[in-house]
Amino acid sequence: MTLLGDLLSTVFERRHRLGAGPRADGEPIERLTRELVSARDETSGLTAARKILARYAALDDEGRIAFFRHLAGDLNLDPAAVREALGAYEAEPSGKSYRAFTAAAEPPRQELIRRLNQLFGATGHLVAMRADLLRLMGKDPALAALDLDFKHLFRSWFNRGFLVLRPINWESPAQVLEKIIAYEAVHAIASWDDLRRRLAPPDRRCFAFFHPAMPDEPLIFVEVALTQGVPNSIQRLLDDGHAPLDPELADTAVFYSISNCQPGLAGISFGNSLIKQVVSDLSVTLPGLKTFVTLSPIPGLCRWMSDEGITPPNEPRAQAALAAQYLLHAKRPDGLPRDPVARFHLGNGAMIHAVHAEADLSENGRSQSLGTMVNYLYDTARVATNHERFAAQKEVVAAPDVTRLAASAAPAPA
Amino acid sequence: MTLLGDLLSTVFERRHRLGAGPRADGEPIERLTRELVSARDETSGLTAARKILARYAALDDEGRIAFFRHLAGDLNLDPAAVREALGAYEAEPSGKSYRAFTAAAEPPRQELIRRLNQLFGATGHLVAMRADLLRLMGKDPALAALDLDFKHLFRSWFNRGFLVLRPINWESPAQVLEKIIAYEAVHAIASWDDLRRRLAPPDRRCFAFFHPAMPDEPLIFVEVALTQGVPNSIQRLLDDGHAPLDPELADTAVFYSISNCQPGLAGISFGNSLIKQVVSDLSVTLPGLKTFVTLSPIPGLCRWMSDEGITPPNEPRAQAALAAQYLLHAKRPDGLPRDPVARFHLGNGAMIHAVHAEADLSENGRSQSLGTMVNYLYDTARVATNHERFAAQKEVVAAPDVTRLAASAAPAPA
Amino acid sequence: MTLLGDLLSTVFERRHRLGAGPRADGEPIERLTRELVSARDETSGLTAARKILARYAALDDEGRIAFFRHLAGDLNLDPAAVREALGAYEAEPSGKSYRAFTAAAEPPRQELIRRLNQLFGATGHLVAMRADLLRLMGKDPALAALDLDFKHLFRSWFNRGFLVLRPINWESPAQVLEKIIAYEAVHAIASWDDLRRRLAPPDRRCFAFFHPAMPDEPLIFVEVALTQGVPNSIQRLLDDGHAPLDPELADTAVFYSISNCQPGLAGISFGNSLIKQVVSDLSVTLPGLKTFVTLSPIPGLCRWMSDEGITPPNEPRAQAALAAQYLLHAKRPDGLPRDPVARFHLGNGAMIHAVHAEADLSENGRSQSLGTMVNYLYDTARVATNHERFAAQKEVVAAPDVTRLAASAAPAPA
Amino acid sequence: MTLLGDLLSTVFERRHRLGAGPRADGEPIERLTRELVSARDETSGLTAARKILARYAALDDEGRIAFFRHLAGDLNLDPAAVREALGAYEAEPSGKSYRAFTAAAEPPRQELIRRLNQLFGATGHLVAMRADLLRLMGKDPALAALDLDFKHLFRSWFNRGFLVLRPINWESPAQVLEKIIAYEAVHAIASWDDLRRRLAPPDRRCFAFFHPAMPDEPLIFVEVALTQGVPNSIQRLLDDGHAPLDPELADTAVFYSISNCQPGLAGISFGNSLIKQVVSDLSVTLPGLKTFVTLSPIPGLCRWMSDEGITPPNEPRAQAALAAQYLLHAKRPDGLPRDPVARFHLGNGAMIHAVHAEADLSENGRSQSLGTMVNYLYDTARVATNHERFAAQKEVVAAPDVTRLAASAAPAPA
Repeated sequence: MTLLGDLLSTVFERRHRLGAGPRADGEPIERLTRELVSARDETSGLTAARKILARYAALDDEGRIAFFRHLAGDLNLDPAAVREALGAYEAEPSGKSYRAFTAAAEPPRQELIRRLNQLFGATGHLVAMRADLLRLMGKDPALAALDLDFKHLFRSWFNRGFLVLRPINWESPAQVLEKIIAYEAVHAIASWDDLRRRLAPPDRRCFAFFHPAMPDEPLIFVEVALTQGVPNSIQRLLDDGHAPLDPELADTAVFYSISNCQPGLAGISFGNSLIKQVVSDLSVTLPGLKTFVTLSPIPGLCRWMSDEGITPPNEPRAQAALAAQYLLHAKRPDGLPRDPVARFHLGNGAMIHAVHAEADLSENGRSQSLGTMVNYLYDTARVATNHERFAAQKEVVAAPDVTRLAASAAPAPA
Repeated sequence: MTLLGDLLSTVFERRHRLGAGPRADGEPIERLTRELVSARDETSGLTAARKILARYAALDDEGRIAFFRHLAGDLNLDPAAVREALGAYEAEPSGKSYRAFTAAAEPPRQELIRRLNQLFGATGHLVAMRADLLRLMGKDPALAALDLDFKHLFRSWFNRGFLVLRPINWESPAQVLEKIIAYEAVHAIASWDDLRRRLAPPDRRCFAFFHPAMPDEPLIFVEVALTQGVPNSIQRLLDDGHAPLDPELADTAVFYSISNCQPGLAGISFGNSLIKQVVSDLSVTLPGLKTFVTLSPIPGLCRWMSDEGITPPNEPRAQAALAAQYLLHAKRPDGLPRDPVARFHLGNGAMIHAVHAEADLSENGRSQSLGTMVNYLYDTARVATNHERFAAQKEVVAAPDVTRLAASAAPAPA
Repeated sequence: MTLLGDLLSTVFERRHRLGAGPRADGEPIERLTRELVSARDETSGLTAARKILARYAALDDEGRIAFFRHLAGDLNLDPAAVREALGAYEAEPSGKSYRAFTAAAEPPRQELIRRLNQLFGATGHLVAMRADLLRLMGKDPALAALDLDFKHLFRSWFNRGFLVLRPINWESPAQVLEKIIAYEAVHAIASWDDLRRRLAPPDRRCFAFFHPAMPDEPLIFVEVALTQGVPNSIQRLLDDGHAPLDPELADTAVFYSISNCQPGLAGISFGNSLIKQVVSDLSVTLPGLKTFVTLSPIPGLCRWMSDEGITPPNEPRAQAALAAQYLLHAKRPDGLPRDPVARFHLGNGAMIHAVHAEADLSENGRSQSLGTMVNYLYDTARVATNHERFAAQKEVVAAPDVTRLAASAAPAPA
Repeated sequence: MTLLGDLLSTVFERRHRLGAGPRADGEPIERLTRELVSARDETSGLTAARKILARYAALDDEGRIAFFRHLAGDLNLDPAAVREALGAYEAEPSGKSYRAFTAAAEPPRQELIRRLNQLFGATGHLVAMRADLLRLMGKDPALAALDLDFKHLFRSWFNRGFLVLRPINWESPAQVLEKIIAYEAVHAIASWDDLRRRLAPPDRRCFAFFHPAMPDEPLIFVEVALTQGVPNSIQRLLDDGHAPLDPELADTAVFYSISNCQPGLAGISFGNSLIKQVVSDLSVTLPGLKTFVTLSPIPGLCRWMSDEGITPPNEPRAQAALAAQYLLHAKRPDGLPRDPVARFHLGNGAMIHAVHAEADLSENGRSQSLGTMVNYLYDTARVATNHERFAAQKEVVAAPDVTRLAASAAPAPA
């Protein structure tokens, strides 16, 4: 972070960040977008780009919707031109006719977004712009198309090969750490002291993906506890008073929280890569680790019970059995598991390893899953076949104990 | 460099570089490309990608041409599908129909290239792959179309906002320096000692653009000498025995060599940005610098003279006048200057500042331009208007002395 | 920090830190010190050193006093041996006799401390050891001698040329920042949010000296505010709601807090160097800065008034006049100013620039100085002569306004 | 390196390097040393220090000898003062009397050297100054005493705990690499290409110790080859055409060259630490390594044979036997091995593992040792006891094969 930060903070670079850009003036933003799309040289393009981003920053939501509608409408495809270029290419396929077709088949707003990105530091602004769009687009089909253009470009820019895996720890810059506090989505971090307890002890780890053009912004991060044996309670795992374990003595790495940080990158998946890389990295640096497992919430359990008319049991084993039943057998119309966290880990090739009652006694844990939690196991030797069975046959792979536990649940009322 | 290099050299990353990939085995590459394009999950995609790159690396030129033809043919657009998707989108524009259209309008080989890039370190291999393609494509229109796809993706990946400007000096890694030696295209670097003379003295600077995914590979670099006054001879500028100038006393920065390093990035221009950033950076760090100027070759002079039937004069002033005449008045059919170096700098907004005879007495200098050279001046206050006049009216802006010099040349024979 | 931290955190280094050392066992510490002092090879020396530091860490205060007495007594000089070696050297000065003399003239405990320092990370432990010694030594003359040995070695190890000046900002590691919170001695930092307000705004700066062997431990730091004009109130300067100033527009840098961090380095002065370097550094990076000034407490004012039987005035101007009188005229028996902060800055070559009433309205500010504060001015052009006049003639240099203000104070009762 | 280099190259630091110092003017150097020793404040001290180093740099050898004589004579101990202070301390031991004694017992030139070192970058100049002294001191006993003062300070400054171990590879700065070429003392490096062969292949390693105050200057470095089995020929080991071994497959690390870089640090030993750290580091990063061994020259063999009147045998086995006999049985008067390289490694706790004929067929190898070489084995489990036996009983530990080989040698003529 600091390293990359350094890279980007030479005197020159600093002066070219957006902050130093021109004030938003009275020029209509539509004229600026036209200038930028048609700019023949970099200099005038950069000037227009700076003005557009400055203008955008000053807009309220209404103004932003109007801006998005402008992109979606005025800078859209011209179907007639596409058809004509396609015909010419079919008639005589050549570099020239192909180039004309690809130019016609891409709406000018894509080039606009690429040109905005020529400014230093613009990438983060564009990601934030898409977050606005997702928040404001409603059911407008034209804005949905605009969103697809953003997503198309972001998939290319945030290609896995461009991401950098970095440890996050108590030596990380405060600037990054405050974002970890803000973005933690699973088990909230209450304070800097709380953060310290998650990062500083020798038996804790945290890793994040970063993109070089947004060096201060984690894209996704995972928090890990090193333990002996597989844990069955998040409260015990995060207990203030726990005596840290010598990491050399740990046999298990527990992924107890994974958080996406950038709403503007919705739909561009990093979690699978992140977990697999962290498994791989930890295996090398701590050869004593034999088990890689999550301690995951079951966010949809209570809603499912309510939909199914199941009365919540009080007895822990009955709760666990119900949770196992839900994870193994509750499906969406497309045949995939109803639980989103289950879909994510099973889709990655993990299997259901164990289900625990009284594992998350927080208010949120009780209200969403009766306090139950689940361990998904990442067994390197089986991840590929697990994945294959899940992807091809929608098969949920689970440990025999879990299968038995699910079978022991009282049948759901018809 | 080292910093970014460090970023990428964690234990994990190293193990995932291509080198550690699978051996190229007997599986047909066509099956691998199909596997990669259709992979639903990252893991199987990465495996296929590794195999494809390993297979490609082992191919000879004939095999590579066959591979390119496969991409150009089997993974091309399906015009009928494009037409159908376009019709559906026109009939009912929606996110869904737009997505279907954009999927159809992009040939599958683009997605293939993006997926190959998910491997660490693949970016450099893909750039090298396009260098092969450019070398081998000949006049095949299908391969020309494939090249346009590479270029389209590279323009997005090597977006100006993703590049990092870094000084190159005697503290730079040997790994990078040996590439500077190899890539210097204007005034060859004979040895490490020669390199040291260009980088180590306090009155010398070098800057390069890098991309974070290719941290050891400069994309383009410029060599700069800090001087008092504008130089008129490259040999004097590079003289071994010159006593270095205290940079605080310099009033002029001379860009005496600009070299592109990556044939695979042909057509993606960085030079304009590089010069402007270096001007800006040097202005801040050395406020005594007032003049930013090149000392440039005139590569097309002698060929033009030969085309025009002009006999080379022996007298230095006559040589200079002829060079000035050529730079100001020799045009291509499209009305732009015939000289490629002139087109580059004038297109950037520079102006012709001075023309010198006996400025490059090397064999190459004599044979291409009778030993003449030219200073293009980057005057920050005038770059924008110069550029505008050149872009809009193809006007070549020159100092009055140069205009007079050109006028003094004997008229070219009709 | 992170950079140096990285340097020290290769796999190898980590494993050799003290933490991984041997448990403190039953071996008497006196035998271990003997082993270490007499060790002929590094390996056995390092083992003994590790054991001693581990044993020391486990001692309570009583045990530590005993350990210090052992060093002070058993590992003291042998005056007879010194006298003999001196005689031999005088009789026949040679390399050999000089070596024998220097060996005899240095108590073995100095070599012990040097050998303890051969362990990675030991430097910080030794600094902490001296902090213990200073706390526990009381008036024991033998321990005072031991303390002089520590100080002698630390002066050599913490030589100005070995220190590194580093900015502290919101990109600094949390590990360092929590120490800034802990060590701030002048105006307490209440929380991480408070720290953020001191470090993150563009018109704030902080710099610290570090030693490469203690990369996570600031030795001394100074907090700076960039302002327009010289401030006259610490509360206004640190006000939460202040709108940050564009640093390019600032004309004044205000040093409003300087804190030493290491009690174990007492008597080894860094503050003078720190201020001068920061002045020099800021002058270059922000050429608009013309005035370098402190906003300093006057810690001894009220005590002096009490000693002199002066009744505290209520009127602000009278308070300021009294403060000016105190700073200019209240002296210690040795003729130097009575106020310690005044001695520090005047000794550095600063001059008294202005005195303000109602400048520190905190409880502490009111109780120590009636709320008055003072600006000491670091005028680069005059620092050397100011210093000279202060050092040679004990002259307190002050602005005419301050001299007049002091003169206007009611005379102190006889 | 680059990292530490960066640390030291902030704008501020650069301007304070020696280069920017004052010109050497006409002031007598004796007055400057007096000024520096008596300076009460840092500012005037730094000015004097800068002038002294600038003056020194401009002196020729004669001038330097005169300067050293000045330090040795005018800034020497005052024995009468020592005796008096010693008496006072004995009469009444106290902090004050101890301080007075230590002040008297240290010659003022030590304080002078410490104060010179307060300048950034001065450490390297002082090391170079001692190199001059060693070269020029001859048999002058006063200069020998001065040298002991330098050495005393350097032992403290270059304390093991302050050194940093860094890998040297093809990513290292050219600035450092050119020093590796220059300092290689065992098997000369002919060119940058030769250097590349020693650093770049995956089965080669190089490590150096650095001091933070001399970040561009290696203090000592070791070159390592990773092999399968123990090598018996340096030419085969360094052969251009060797196919690099996958380091994961190596079972042996061969230390084939160790070079001290700083003549000015003579007598301050780093080699022992370096080898042990590298063994430890490699063990962790490449767990497949089981054997750590040198391939060392036997520099004194032929001279010993000549001294003993032994005729060089032609037969390889006889050469090896003679070498083994020399290593095991040829002693200095003090009972330690006659061969300096043997003393070094045996003193570190290594043992003689094997002796090879025809192992160094270079001209130098033949002339110093008939082409024989030796492997010293660093067996972590036995290093401590080996060392103990060597240190206490001067016992040379050798493999049985070597002992037998030595026994097979023809007896040396009486």
